[in-house]
Amino acid sequence: MQGQHNQQAYDRGITIFSPDGRLYQVEYAREAVKRGTATIGVRTPDGVALVADRSVRSRLIEPESVEKLHEIDDHVGVASAGHVADARKLVDFARRRAQTEQLRYGESIGVETLAKSITDNIQEHTQTGGARPFGVSLLIAGTEDGEPHLYEADPSGVATEWKAVAVGGDRDVIQGHLEEEYTAELSADEGVGLALEALAQADSDGIDPASVDVAVIDAETDQYQPYGVEDVRDIVADLDVEVIDEEEE
Amino acid sequence: MQGQHNQQAYDRGITIFSPDGRLYQVEYAREAVKRGTATIGVRTPDGVALVADRSVRSRLIEPESVEKLHEIDDHVGVASAGHVADARKLVDFARRRAQTEQLRYGESIGVETLAKSITDNIQEHTQTGGARPFGVSLLIAGTEDGEPHLYEADPSGVATEWKAVAVGGDRDVIQGHLEEEYTAELSADEGVGLALEALAQADSDGIDPASVDVAVIDAETDQYQPYGVEDVRDIVADLDVEVIDEEEE
Amino acid sequence: MQGQHNQQAYDRGITIFSPDGRLYQVEYAREAVKRGTATIGVRTPDGVALVADRSVRSRLIEPESVEKLHEIDDHVGVASAGHVADARKLVDFARRRAQTEQLRYGESIGVETLAKSITDNIQEHTQTGGARPFGVSLLIAGTEDGEPHLYEADPSGVATEWKAVAVGGDRDVIQGHLEEEYTAELSADEGVGLALEALAQADSDGIDPASVDVAVIDAETDQYQPYGVEDVRDIVADLDVEVIDEEEE
Amino acid sequence: MQGQHNQQAYDRGITIFSPDGRLYQVEYAREAVKRGTATIGVRTPDGVALVADRSVRSRLIEPESVEKLHEIDDHVGVASAGHVADARKLVDFARRRAQTEQLRYGESIGVETLAKSITDNIQEHTQTGGARPFGVSLLIAGTEDGEPHLYEADPSGVATEWKAVAVGGDRDVIQGHLEEEYTAELSADEGVGLALEALAQADSDGIDPASVDVAVIDAETDQYQPYGVEDVRDIVADLDVEVIDEEEE
Amino acid sequence: MQGQHNQQAYDRGITIFSPDGRLYQVEYAREAVKRGTATIGVRTPDGVALVADRSVRSRLIEPESVEKLHEIDDHVGVASAGHVADARKLVDFARRRAQTEQLRYGESIGVETLAKSITDNIQEHTQTGGARPFGVSLLIAGTEDGEPHLYEADPSGVATEWKAVAVGGDRDVIQGHLEEEYTAELSADEGVGLALEALAQADSDGIDPASVDVAVIDAETDQYQPYGVEDVRDIVADLDVEVIDEEEE
Amino acid sequence: MQGQHNQQAYDRGITIFSPDGRLYQVEYAREAVKRGTATIGVRTPDGVALVADRSVRSRLIEPESVEKLHEIDDHVGVASAGHVADARKLVDFARRRAQTEQLRYGESIGVETLAKSITDNIQEHTQTGGARPFGVSLLIAGTEDGEPHLYEADPSGVATEWKAVAVGGDRDVIQGHLEEEYTAELSADEGVGLALEALAQADSDGIDPASVDVAVIDAETDQYQPYGVEDVRDIVADLDVEVIDEEEE
Amino acid sequence: MQGQHNQQAYDRGITIFSPDGRLYQVEYAREAVKRGTATIGVRTPDGVALVADRSVRSRLIEPESVEKLHEIDDHVGVASAGHVADARKLVDFARRRAQTEQLRYGESIGVETLAKSITDNIQEHTQTGGARPFGVSLLIAGTEDGEPHLYEADPSGVATEWKAVAVGGDRDVIQGHLEEEYTAELSADEGVGLALEALAQADSDGIDPASVDVAVIDAETDQYQPYGVEDVRDIVADLDVEVIDEEEE
Repeated sequence: MQGQHNQQAYDRGITIFSPDGRLYQVEYAREAVKRGTATIGVRTPDGVALVADRSVRSRLIEPESVEKLHEIDDHVGVASAGHVADARKLVDFARRRAQTEQLRYGESIGVETLAKSITDNIQEHTQTGGARPFGVSLLIAGTEDGEPHLYEADPSGVATEWKAVAVGGDRDVIQGHLEEEYTAELSADEGVGLALEALAQADSDGIDPASVDVAVIDAETDQYQPYGVEDVRDIVADLDVEVIDEEEE
Repeated sequence: MQGQHNQQAYDRGITIFSPDGRLYQVEYAREAVKRGTATIGVRTPDGVALVADRSVRSRLIEPESVEKLHEIDDHVGVASAGHVADARKLVDFARRRAQTEQLRYGESIGVETLAKSITDNIQEHTQTGGARPFGVSLLIAGTEDGEPHLYEADPSGVATEWKAVAVGGDRDVIQGHLEEEYTAELSADEGVGLALEALAQADSDGIDPASVDVAVIDAETDQYQPYGVEDVRDIVADLDVEVIDEEEE
Repeated sequence: MQGQHNQQAYDRGITIFSPDGRLYQVEYAREAVKRGTATIGVRTPDGVALVADRSVRSRLIEPESVEKLHEIDDHVGVASAGHVADARKLVDFARRRAQTEQLRYGESIGVETLAKSITDNIQEHTQTGGARPFGVSLLIAGTEDGEPHLYEADPSGVATEWKAVAVGGDRDVIQGHLEEEYTAELSADEGVGLALEALAQADSDGIDPASVDVAVIDAETDQYQPYGVEDVRDIVADLDVEVIDEEEE
Repeated sequence: MQGQHNQQAYDRGITIFSPDGRLYQVEYAREAVKRGTATIGVRTPDGVALVADRSVRSRLIEPESVEKLHEIDDHVGVASAGHVADARKLVDFARRRAQTEQLRYGESIGVETLAKSITDNIQEHTQTGGARPFGVSLLIAGTEDGEPHLYEADPSGVATEWKAVAVGGDRDVIQGHLEEEYTAELSADEGVGLALEALAQADSDGIDPASVDVAVIDAETDQYQPYGVEDVRDIVADLDVEVIDEEEE
Repeated sequence: MQGQHNQQAYDRGITIFSPDGRLYQVEYAREAVKRGTATIGVRTPDGVALVADRSVRSRLIEPESVEKLHEIDDHVGVASAGHVADARKLVDFARRRAQTEQLRYGESIGVETLAKSITDNIQEHTQTGGARPFGVSLLIAGTEDGEPHLYEADPSGVATEWKAVAVGGDRDVIQGHLEEEYTAELSADEGVGLALEALAQADSDGIDPASVDVAVIDAETDQYQPYGVEDVRDIVADLDVEVIDEEEE
Repeated sequence: MQGQHNQQAYDRGITIFSPDGRLYQVEYAREAVKRGTATIGVRTPDGVALVADRSVRSRLIEPESVEKLHEIDDHVGVASAGHVADARKLVDFARRRAQTEQLRYGESIGVETLAKSITDNIQEHTQTGGARPFGVSLLIAGTEDGEPHLYEADPSGVATEWKAVAVGGDRDVIQGHLEEEYTAELSADEGVGLALEALAQADSDGIDPASVDVAVIDAETDQYQPYGVEDVRDIVADLDVEVIDEEEE
Repeated sequence: MQGQHNQQAYDRGITIFSPDGRLYQVEYAREAVKRGTATIGVRTPDGVALVADRSVRSRLIEPESVEKLHEIDDHVGVASAGHVADARKLVDFARRRAQTEQLRYGESIGVETLAKSITDNIQEHTQTGGARPFGVSLLIAGTEDGEPHLYEADPSGVATEWKAVAVGGDRDVIQGHLEEEYTAELSADEGVGLALEALAQADSDGIDPASVDVAVIDAETDQYQPYGVEDVRDIVADLDVEVIDEEEE
């Protein structure tokens, strides 16, 4: 009960420190991320695979409008988990940032540079008064001179580079599977497959190819490539996971 | 009682996170939406039907002044549920936004583009200090190159595309009916009919053609078309719902 | 008592949402309106009648200085109920708005346009921080191309068009009378009479012609016309209400 | 005790509404007015009399420095009751306003126009954040084309025109006397006499001519005329009140 | 205890009204004045005497650095009691104000004009948010066309003209002596003597000429004249007070 | 429990003083530093060694992305402990500051000058409202005219020059080892070795060369030189510490 | 316990008055000063001696980086006690202020002028919102036309001139010694000696010449002269105090 009271005392102001040196509003924003559906990134030599759970709560929703994967530039994609409107705001920021780079220097923005710009923006919202933190984690995936990169941007504004990572709901289970099964020598489609397998760990019903968003940023072409339902179906067919396959419409 | 206390602690500031990662002021704004009368959108190949319950609390009110449907541009309409004055502010924003697009680029604004502009504005009110969120949900309906679209914008600033959706009071009952009865091959008038039937589920007294607002954004002409009382009466006549038909004046 | 506490928690900030989706400061502003004396508008084909109870608390007050009716432009009048100084501020706003329209476009402002401008201003005070809502409701009456209009602007910033409406103290009783007795085919003076009868319902002592403010915006001449005490006395004489007639001074 | 608590909850913010629709800070400012000494205005056909109780708390104070009456322009005077420094600020505002009018339009400011400017300023301090209301009531007396006017400006920003009015300490007793005894056909000096008589009701010791401030704004000359101690003594001599007459120094 | 709680409720905000119409922060600032050592002004036909108790808490302090009397212009001096740093800020303000007057109009600032400027500045700090009141009272003494004037500026921003006045610690005792003994026909030195006698009432040990600050603004020369220790010693010698005379250093 | 309450009272505002003269938000920021992994600096005549514990929580994280050492300029490096995003913001600040110096004066920034700029920035965040302190301590290491320097910048904004210092988790144990074992006559590699030995005191498992970040700012070349895993492995081999050596990938 | 509660009520806002007229944040800032190590100034006819206790908490700290004495200009030095980063900010302010004077008027800034500028800056931080007071006291020592001056600037913004003064930890004991032993006829070195003796009163272990900072602003040369460890050792040798003399490194 003491704890209860302590906690209440700190969330009134915006992101101030608690006696044990934590920023409560940032911690709560992490909870907002966990409330979102799972999003996974897997880096392979051939490119970076992004897979997002897009299970929609109604058959009347246009699944495409529940965007979890966003093309930022030809060679960069972003996947999000958490507060949807916050994610869109950061995605817009990322796109403008990439365009500015192109206009100013005539070349594509580096993946790390972009990740840093985004996390600087996020950090700013945890220190300066008058605004709350972003309730979202992003996976920033892209290629740079044929080199695939995968960054996670968390609500505190930290950018971490991963070989494979999950954010959002059921993160612990999914990340656990990635930690166990990831190997460096995967093809891009095997990367997608690993992500889908990991996702299946968290959902006992299995995978519905129509309710996952998949894209690969290809290391050879430096292109963001969204996968269609058929592409996903083909990959899932080869996996040892239950398939939920309801033809849409 | 513990819950009571926790709750009180978080609504003093503007839209900060609660320990479980929710934005309370946004949650409360959703309650404001539920306090409004129901509003329904149904997308059909021929166009998008918007139907709003305009039941007024006095016979002395001019029903037309209780606007729930608003023409934004020739090819776009918006329906609202919730805090009326907030809705008007967003409708004004949408109109100015559409005009600016026309003036700047010489062409009509896309429906998705407009939905995004509106939800960006809404999101801004959930993150930046000094203002409260909008207590309103909007349905944004329109056509783009003959393609009908129907978006919902909620108080958190999320835009979702729907085939058929209800917002406002009795949403659960009405949406339930839509989920069961919606089929993709409806004419526009059948779409209006489906919406009216759904509305009737929530009101045991039946439908009064004079107290519903109806409009269709026609996919062939790309035109917003308000329906008169007679049009509504004709459609209702073919439905299996009770009709309340008091001639006005 | 729980309710007591909840209530206290929400009125400290400016117009934030309560858990049930209401804006408490706006609700309290409505109470300020109820503390004012009654004000009535009746729309007839010949024009709009505005009647306000101006009963003053001392014989030494100049009754004319207790303004409840205000000419905004030749063809528009405004009646107010609630916090007097707030009303004056909105009346000033309305006059400036009407003048600007005249100067910019060389023509009189439309009644609906004016009502919308006023309610936009009111809404702004319920959403943006740093100011409280207006504690006043206005009746905006006018003619537009010979067409009479009567709008109510409430503290939340909603504009509603009425055939006949009352705001301020004893609203329920007075509006009840209007609902029962109003018919569409009234002359302007009959409209004044209906309003006075309704007012008399709330005051068992009867009507004192010297303590009511009356004006009609005439549909034929598009002119705001204040009625003198004699005009009122003549109308009251024909009504079935008690008359309090003390010659002044 | 419940009331105690409720009250505490509302006075922390600046002038927000209480659940019953009142502005507490404004109500408290009215208390500041009551803490001031009494000030009286009486309008007669010959001009407006202003009388203020200037009873000073020490014989070492220069009575003239305890100003209660202030010449604003040749034809306008202001009397104040309440927080002295706040009064001075409003008096300065009134003088600047009168000068601006003279400079801009080459003619004296109207009394009502001035009263309105002052009350607009006062109202602004009750709605916009960051400042408290003025703890003062003013009597604004003047002539306009030979027509005498007397306005009261209260802490809420309401301007009321009176034939005779008292503000400040013992207002109820003094105003009661005015209500009973005031008649329209008074000379200016009889107006001063009536005010002094009224003042004497509240002070059982009687009137000390040296401790009242008296001025008349003369309707014929349109001039603010302060009365000397001898003038006051002459008027008091004719009244049925106890006279305290200690020669000063 | 109820009172305790009420009190706490009002001092959190800056200078808002309490239910009984007082400004608590201003009241508390008066307490800061009382914590300061006593300062006395006596107006005589020959000039105004300022006397301040400069008793220092250590023999190692340079007594001159504990300034209580400040020359503002040739013909004006200011004495302060209360929060020392606040006093310095107001003294600086007064000096700049006097210089500006000289530069702009080529003549010395009037004493009343200066007093008004200072109190306007003080009042501003009691009404506008974001700053606390000044914790200081000033005596503003000067001559204007050979006419001596003595004003007190208190923390609420009121300017009062006095014949003789004390502010700061032991004010009640000292002012009591002034009230009893002051006569209009004093020489400037007798004025100094009266002030020193009054000061001696509050300190049973008597007067130490080295620990009082004395200055006279001479009505004939219009000059601020600080008195040396010897001057003070001569005056004290003639008084019926105990003299503490320790040669310094 | 009293203490509990006191504590709560002070952390709501931003960095205000507690009754015992401490700035709580700054104290809590120090706790954030302790939550970070350990970072060590050792100054030797040959240069300054920076060693940071980069133990990552997953084998899927790219260890290089968990940056603890940052090159600021050719001749300056910064090591951080605490809130990672805050550290990045200060590192960016330091780089811009170094570049500006180069551009403006054509020469490299002095180490002390840089340390002062950084701590000025930090101090600003502890005094001016609207932002929280930085939750990070930095070690600023560099050479100036061949002279090695090592500064610590703490969350209060103090810059301290050290011969050898540790910040972050397990600081007490690590600093204790440095205090005991440091001697002035070390080579740069011996400095690295001393830091690694100290680090090993806090981790009973020993040192994993792949999970420490090491760099030396060389006094002869004035160059920041990051050490590779092999370099670290060679140094650790000579130390009396347990080595954890898992080949990566 | 009542007192406990009262206290809590006032420290939330920035430097507002308590009911007894004190500024709590300023009082708490004085506590921050007491937490610092002792700093002493002694004025002699030959110059002003500044002595500061620089006892460092680790042998690995570069003692010079724990600056307590700061040269502001050729002829002025400042010693500080309290919050170190705050002191640095004021020292920077003082240096800029001295430079500006030199640039503008071509002559060195007066010591009193500088002291006043610094204390004006400090006072500003106790009255204007949005910032806390400085947690530091400064001794400002210098010569002006060969005349030595020594000022203390305290956290309230008061400047006091002293013959000899101590600030910081153990102030009472040290100042007590100064009060007893100070005489006006000291050489500068005797002044240093007196300060060291006073310092020794507070530390039973005696004086370590290496852990005191000493400087003299010489009245003949108008130069700030830091003393080396040898100079201090020579002076201490002649004193009746225990000497701790550990050769450094």
